[in-house]
Amino acid sequence: MPSLPRYAVVMAGGSGTRFWPRSRHRAPKQLLPIVGTRTMLQETVARVSPPIDRSRVLVVTGQVHARAVRAQLPELPTSALLVEPRGRNTAPAIALAALHIAREHPDAVMAVLPADHAIADRGVFRADLSAALDVAERTGALVTFGIQPTHPETGYGYIRPGARLDGAARARAFRVRAFIEKPNAARARALIARGGVFWNSGIFAWRARSILDALRTHVPDVLAPLEAAVTSGSRHALRAAYGRLPSISIDTGVLERANHVAVLRARFAWSDVGSWAAVEPIWRNGTDRHNAVRGRALAIDSRGCVVDSPQRLIALLGVEDLVVVDTRDAVLVCRKQRAQDVRMVVDELRRRRLGRYL
Amino acid sequence: MPSLPRYAVVMAGGSGTRFWPRSRHRAPKQLLPIVGTRTMLQETVARVSPPIDRSRVLVVTGQVHARAVRAQLPELPTSALLVEPRGRNTAPAIALAALHIAREHPDAVMAVLPADHAIADRGVFRADLSAALDVAERTGALVTFGIQPTHPETGYGYIRPGARLDGAARARAFRVRAFIEKPNAARARALIARGGVFWNSGIFAWRARSILDALRTHVPDVLAPLEAAVTSGSRHALRAAYGRLPSISIDTGVLERANHVAVLRARFAWSDVGSWAAVEPIWRNGTDRHNAVRGRALAIDSRGCVVDSPQRLIALLGVEDLVVVDTRDAVLVCRKQRAQDVRMVVDELRRRRLGRYL
Repeated sequence: MPSLPRYAVVMAGGSGTRFWPRSRHRAPKQLLPIVGTRTMLQETVARVSPPIDRSRVLVVTGQVHARAVRAQLPELPTSALLVEPRGRNTAPAIALAALHIAREHPDAVMAVLPADHAIADRGVFRADLSAALDVAERTGALVTFGIQPTHPETGYGYIRPGARLDGAARARAFRVRAFIEKPNAARARALIARGGVFWNSGIFAWRARSILDALRTHVPDVLAPLEAAVTSGSRHALRAAYGRLPSISIDTGVLERANHVAVLRARFAWSDVGSWAAVEPIWRNGTDRHNAVRGRALAIDSRGCVVDSPQRLIALLGVEDLVVVDTRDAVLVCRKQRAQDVRMVVDELRRRRLGRYL
Repeated sequence: MPSLPRYAVVMAGGSGTRFWPRSRHRAPKQLLPIVGTRTMLQETVARVSPPIDRSRVLVVTGQVHARAVRAQLPELPTSALLVEPRGRNTAPAIALAALHIAREHPDAVMAVLPADHAIADRGVFRADLSAALDVAERTGALVTFGIQPTHPETGYGYIRPGARLDGAARARAFRVRAFIEKPNAARARALIARGGVFWNSGIFAWRARSILDALRTHVPDVLAPLEAAVTSGSRHALRAAYGRLPSISIDTGVLERANHVAVLRARFAWSDVGSWAAVEPIWRNGTDRHNAVRGRALAIDSRGCVVDSPQRLIALLGVEDLVVVDTRDAVLVCRKQRAQDVRMVVDELRRRRLGRYL
């Protein structure tokens, strides 16, 4: 049984543009039901309890999305929502959450989870999350979740594990030998061919004290201003602190520099759902054997398409490997292999001052 | 100057399905603004006056579209609308119109024009229409308009001309040596390679008496019942007559069998606008150099597409040679080379009992 209090920090700060036109400035991916019937944020919060008590779930988000987050999670107390005055990547967000947790329980263990990932096997995930918190509690390590790769993906960072951690309960836990940044296609193929690497999921577990120590050591310009602002308890001080913070990820700021970093091999199926193309295997369970459809579609001589149309009927005739997304005021028709470039549409809309579609 | 009264008969009876989802059961192609800002029917009626007096324009249509036709042509008297109780192809429709015209003016000359064709050069068309009516009046021939082919089209019938008709004004008029049915691709290529053929436009000019004589000779089972019904003046008699009429085109029923058939080489650019692919050259004049767009589209790394979207924004990313048509309740995404198969969608909707989209 766990001895220390356990927290979950759900990172809901993103303002991604790769799910346009479904995602908009005020409705980014994590606030949308991309995968299931609940929003990705709601799914993420539901996924962590158990093992983590609902009263110990925190959500970090930005000013512009705070109201929507609260509306989507009415069961959480207002104090569970940590609102960043501006986005500064993951290191400041995690530091802010760790400071809050450490004030309540200096010995707490915390999991950090992006609000916009898809995880298929909820039971397996719960068990793995418990295992990661156990490892973090007993070893004091900064624990990352490593995903068994299925293909030479260029959209993820990789982790090369080293020596196995001691102890029976930690059979799947290893020291991290190296973090490998998102590779190009050739490097990704070489990594997969050689084997023995994980995808870096961006899901973490550690003691609040461990990550605060590491932040203090490796990014003092992030931790010190936040620590002062949180101690003062003033929102004005927090805003002033964020105005001076560097924008830096927890990976490059801390994990790639720290000593005591571990990776736990996850057993659950995972995707960061990085583009419309990524929903294909998730949606491919409907009545259409050849296309991944959510909503209404009629496909003739068409295959490999991803269709999202809750309202209108989408008729496909003689087409392959397209993404078609229908919304109230805009329709996306995109070659599936270009799905990661949807932000080009968003950029172009901005350039043409067509802000009403953003 | 013409000596005999001149009529135009606009054939607005079609219920085509190749422009779904823009065209619907109650709004077929001819009742839609496919080419310009006015509907194809309105364009056709405007195109014939001059040379034909507005009071001598008749429109033949079906029961289901009569109200819409009247609404689109408020300037025409009610008597200008000939409503067929049911569709029986072009021979009965032309016979009905010719009978009405002959009752008013036994010596009249009439032009017959489908309501759903696109013609680019209105001034040239007016001059050619006059010339065809002249030839019909002076020679008594059944005059067809022959279009100079631009490519080996398989969607049109062809006409092989014979000897030139006498007379200076008829330099472009020939006897018809043969009608050639819609060819397959190889035959179409051979026809174009050999040259000396026209596309059969389906636009005609003849004396009312000439076509009635030909109908009496070649399809008496069409003319006799209609003649009796029109003479009686009873709508009930007309409905009963149509119940017994064969469904037959003027081409196979009359023109391919008659002796005195001529073809006038047209000088105007013409298209029967047989599918969404056919609008591409007509629309390709907008701000997008690579795609034929009507309405709102934003195209990135995309070319050869036909987009019709009066309301919503269509964003294209990395796609080629697609037809995208957005309507209130349905969106078509179709490979352009399959545009002639759009009726497959309509058939499938019918099969699935999704009549609300028809």
